[in-house]
Amino acid sequence: MGIHQYFRSLSDLENIYRCPGKFKYQEHSVAEHSFKVTQVAQFLGNVEEQAGQAVNWRALYEKALNHDYPELFIGDIKTPVKYATSELREMLSEVEETMTRNFIDNEIPTEFQAIYHVLLKEGKDDTLEGRILAVADKVDLLYESFGEIQKGNPEPTFTKIYSEALETIYQFREMNCVQYFLREILPDLLAEKGIEKTDLPALTTEIKARVLKEDN
Amino acid sequence: MGIHQYFRSLSDLENIYRCPGKFKYQEHSVAEHSFKVTQVAQFLGNVEEQAGQAVNWRALYEKALNHDYPELFIGDIKTPVKYATSELREMLSEVEETMTRNFIDNEIPTEFQAIYHVLLKEGKDDTLEGRILAVADKVDLLYESFGEIQKGNPEPTFTKIYSEALETIYQFREMNCVQYFLREILPDLLAEKGIEKTDLPALTTEIKARVLKEDN
Amino acid sequence: MGIHQYFRSLSDLENIYRCPGKFKYQEHSVAEHSFKVTQVAQFLGNVEEQAGQAVNWRALYEKALNHDYPELFIGDIKTPVKYATSELREMLSEVEETMTRNFIDNEIPTEFQAIYHVLLKEGKDDTLEGRILAVADKVDLLYESFGEIQKGNPEPTFTKIYSEALETIYQFREMNCVQYFLREILPDLLAEKGIEKTDLPALTTEIKARVLKEDN
Amino acid sequence: MGIHQYFRSLSDLENIYRCPGKFKYQEHSVAEHSFKVTQVAQFLGNVEEQAGQAVNWRALYEKALNHDYPELFIGDIKTPVKYATSELREMLSEVEETMTRNFIDNEIPTEFQAIYHVLLKEGKDDTLEGRILAVADKVDLLYESFGEIQKGNPEPTFTKIYSEALETIYQFREMNCVQYFLREILPDLLAEKGIEKTDLPALTTEIKARVLKEDN
Amino acid sequence: MGIHQYFRSLSDLENIYRCPGKFKYQEHSVAEHSFKVTQVAQFLGNVEEQAGQAVNWRALYEKALNHDYPELFIGDIKTPVKYATSELREMLSEVEETMTRNFIDNEIPTEFQAIYHVLLKEGKDDTLEGRILAVADKVDLLYESFGEIQKGNPEPTFTKIYSEALETIYQFREMNCVQYFLREILPDLLAEKGIEKTDLPALTTEIKARVLKEDN
Amino acid sequence: MGIHQYFRSLSDLENIYRCPGKFKYQEHSVAEHSFKVTQVAQFLGNVEEQAGQAVNWRALYEKALNHDYPELFIGDIKTPVKYATSELREMLSEVEETMTRNFIDNEIPTEFQAIYHVLLKEGKDDTLEGRILAVADKVDLLYESFGEIQKGNPEPTFTKIYSEALETIYQFREMNCVQYFLREILPDLLAEKGIEKTDLPALTTEIKARVLKEDN
Repeated sequence: MGIHQYFRSLSDLENIYRCPGKFKYQEHSVAEHSFKVTQVAQFLGNVEEQAGQAVNWRALYEKALNHDYPELFIGDIKTPVKYATSELREMLSEVEETMTRNFIDNEIPTEFQAIYHVLLKEGKDDTLEGRILAVADKVDLLYESFGEIQKGNPEPTFTKIYSEALETIYQFREMNCVQYFLREILPDLLAEKGIEKTDLPALTTEIKARVLKEDN
Repeated sequence: MGIHQYFRSLSDLENIYRCPGKFKYQEHSVAEHSFKVTQVAQFLGNVEEQAGQAVNWRALYEKALNHDYPELFIGDIKTPVKYATSELREMLSEVEETMTRNFIDNEIPTEFQAIYHVLLKEGKDDTLEGRILAVADKVDLLYESFGEIQKGNPEPTFTKIYSEALETIYQFREMNCVQYFLREILPDLLAEKGIEKTDLPALTTEIKARVLKEDN
Repeated sequence: MGIHQYFRSLSDLENIYRCPGKFKYQEHSVAEHSFKVTQVAQFLGNVEEQAGQAVNWRALYEKALNHDYPELFIGDIKTPVKYATSELREMLSEVEETMTRNFIDNEIPTEFQAIYHVLLKEGKDDTLEGRILAVADKVDLLYESFGEIQKGNPEPTFTKIYSEALETIYQFREMNCVQYFLREILPDLLAEKGIEKTDLPALTTEIKARVLKEDN
Repeated sequence: MGIHQYFRSLSDLENIYRCPGKFKYQEHSVAEHSFKVTQVAQFLGNVEEQAGQAVNWRALYEKALNHDYPELFIGDIKTPVKYATSELREMLSEVEETMTRNFIDNEIPTEFQAIYHVLLKEGKDDTLEGRILAVADKVDLLYESFGEIQKGNPEPTFTKIYSEALETIYQFREMNCVQYFLREILPDLLAEKGIEKTDLPALTTEIKARVLKEDN
Repeated sequence: MGIHQYFRSLSDLENIYRCPGKFKYQEHSVAEHSFKVTQVAQFLGNVEEQAGQAVNWRALYEKALNHDYPELFIGDIKTPVKYATSELREMLSEVEETMTRNFIDNEIPTEFQAIYHVLLKEGKDDTLEGRILAVADKVDLLYESFGEIQKGNPEPTFTKIYSEALETIYQFREMNCVQYFLREILPDLLAEKGIEKTDLPALTTEIKARVLKEDN
Repeated sequence: MGIHQYFRSLSDLENIYRCPGKFKYQEHSVAEHSFKVTQVAQFLGNVEEQAGQAVNWRALYEKALNHDYPELFIGDIKTPVKYATSELREMLSEVEETMTRNFIDNEIPTEFQAIYHVLLKEGKDDTLEGRILAVADKVDLLYESFGEIQKGNPEPTFTKIYSEALETIYQFREMNCVQYFLREILPDLLAEKGIEKTDLPALTTEIKARVLKEDN
């Protein structure tokens, strides 16, 4: 009933923390994650543009900024559920979509409903911008799990998250921005203090080898 | 694979906070809520026993202590979802049960699986102990929402939670322990400092009136 | 030396809290504020577009998303300093700009330096997008201070911030989005629970009256 | 004056943190500890029952759930004092008991006073249930100190706590549940990520050796 | 064994929070309280000096800075115990003193032991400096409880603390610094935002009246 | 406008955290730092006195206690700025001084203004007490950065801070208290658990070697 409810809800995203139920040295709210994903997407978009791709910037920013808004309704529950079945994941996805639709119909003024149905729908489609979002989301997840592992978090979940995020990034390896990431950024990440003593170098090499094998 | 995973998971319940996405002055972990519900159930059980009811104490403690363990799998997402449709609620309930079953089958040693299938199943059945749990769960929810309202939390969610909790308690008004609660405890709650300036006295009176009307 | 440093620095913005040195019920990191400002700017941009204005969306998102990145270098110190002299404010602004320039020259890869010099420069210029940013920044500040006052924060600073933010918004009252804000959103804000007992209604009326007088 | 005070005090146990004065990566409230101890006791009770022992479940749950309630009165101060003299420890224990007695006499309704004098008295007696509580309390303490050491806490106190907890558990090594713990759980604990680089394997071996020697 | 242990222990005082077991909007560590008491004592000492009293500044700073160091050993447990009997309070005081003595004998290098036996002994004696410390300690306690009441904390403990602190300050009303406090500072405190709606004005007037009556 | 504002501002120093924008395992407020620096200065003063130096204790305590009060005005921003140019540092220092002067003139009662102009001015002059303050400030900074490195903080900033702090301490190596620190305390620090695996032993040796070389 008015955009005021929407503005207030932004603050609720400051109160939802990612990966609940696991000890973390540093918490990340959904609002903070959304900020970082949009920043990363902005950089990746610039890489694509420099490589000659036409970027629809409005679409890119919209997708990145709003991609986790629907977590408002059911929270960040995907991580643990992910290790269950794909059927469960789908059920939850449906719940989320229905609740988002209801929210827009009830809270957003009529003249803006069409806009918000677009803004808040799942953004990870096959367009260049949808793929940049998919990569940016995983890059931030990679940094978040990396940060925990580097600080000494013994929770195996973070190693799983790192692997899964890196594997997803590799799936987009035909993209210029992913090639840039793998060539310029990942090595800097692995050169960080203390990483040589963790599982990450071996894990990274193994994932890379698996991908190269697929490519041949 | 082994009860060690179960012991470790208890600590994860210290990292899941109730009612995510809403500003709170005081956070309550699922572990803390479980402790308080068991304490409240212990008291309510004693009221029933003094009133001549036979309490199966083992069943009561089991139900109260373990009632929210499955939140480990999908977090405390019921509150916002509750205001959606009952179909959604059911879907989530199913997800939770499946994940609990999988967890027991994968992590609990074979000789204890049967026990944990009983311990972790939904405890709010029609037995005396199941009804005491239903009441105790709502009493703690009432105290939690009361605490926020008393401290000045302007979030309307807490008023909704208070109402809904009190209404559920009233549904069990034929029980001795609920009669004790309504007669001896609720007035003390409403006599707390600063409550006279909140919606709670009117709300409580209104709920009571509605119930009395139903009774006639 | 490499964009990795930039990605890491995004996480530092999660560790800088706004308005340091004042008790707050709810903290807001610079990362969270940036997310909310971009969300608000996105909405205000849509209002302008519906009113027939041509919005440069890329510019708008860039300005909003990056507008507080330079706080990385000197933190959020403007609030208290603001009540000092304009000379001091200018000196600090210069420090910030120099440090931003140095950071780009030292840390950002050569081929992206020109881009980041644009992204990280002061965005509040006279373009439509610069003015939307100025308004969006104040809208979030208004909500943050409002949130503290509504929760009962006795610190006079938050009343000052509310006033100053609202006055700045009024300065842009020829804009469609500001007219929408004043007409549709501000009344909803003031209709929030408990606000009638605070200074805010009187303060808001007084600011409005002062502005109307100026207009005549 | 009324059970309302008792219910309110449960929330105070959420505000008392264990082992004050030492840096910890993860805090544990007395409420959370009580929940975990009761969960552990529940499991250990099942081990005993499977081994043919008759468990008084009501007594076991009562002892575990309430065993640290009296920390409400003087806080969790035993840890540092423990390394002082036994005379000091006894004095504090007396203070605690007197305050618990006074609390019951002043706050609990007359008809429940006898019950609470039983519920809140020291539960670690020579019964099977008292011994299970003694073990369960130390198992949770072991997990808490283990968690800190695994996360990299350099504070020597946690190594002392781990040793002392394990030694106490060994003192009950004639119990089925302790044999289960030593055979099935402790090895899983020591197989956790990163533990091989800590003092814990050597420490554990040394304690075991010392005990075996005593047994011969 | 070496002053390094003493320096490390200062950081432990950052991990001990005052008034444990009560919900607070703002926590105060023992280290922070000690800083504030020393600042207040510094001001009160200047008032006395301006009024012609000879202040032994070294003694004053020593007393104020170190007055709560012994809380390292048993924590901040006095508040709840205070409302028990004086016998209990004395027992705890003895425990604290013994532990302080032991700490100095074991950890402080021989050549500094005599100094630290003086620094860490109870400082609230009948000297001017001892009395200034007694007042400064209560002034900070008054501000701490005032802060909670002003922010809306419904916990009755803070009203008790405020009363008790003010009454103790009045006991030293023959001192120049207390007269200054009552004349110049207390009215400013009571003129703070929102205080007129709390119990504090009536409470303050009542305490003052009681004292004046005693004086006649 | 009354010393009440000054007393209130002490609490603001509890809300300013040192080294903002960097992840830390343990936060230190400016109030806590001030307490620890005063404690360290107290010890170093005793070392000097035992070595036959005349210590002006009032000056020493004043300098140590108040040395970071002006951070109230612009926050703890020096760390990152320090790695910029000395010109920038100077500009900020000027801002801080002007704001301190203004605060005293506006808020402190006339009869105490002269006193507070002395108390709040930069204390690190060439007197014995000014030099003890300079050392004590760096000793606490050394302990703070040491604490992060020991706990596993991978942020390179803390190694830079440790180095810089130790180098500054060495600059005062003609002082008795610094010789005591280097001979008795620093080895204990480096003998702490886990330090042998960090950069600190090599770094310390290197700094020492560099200094000895300068001395020849």
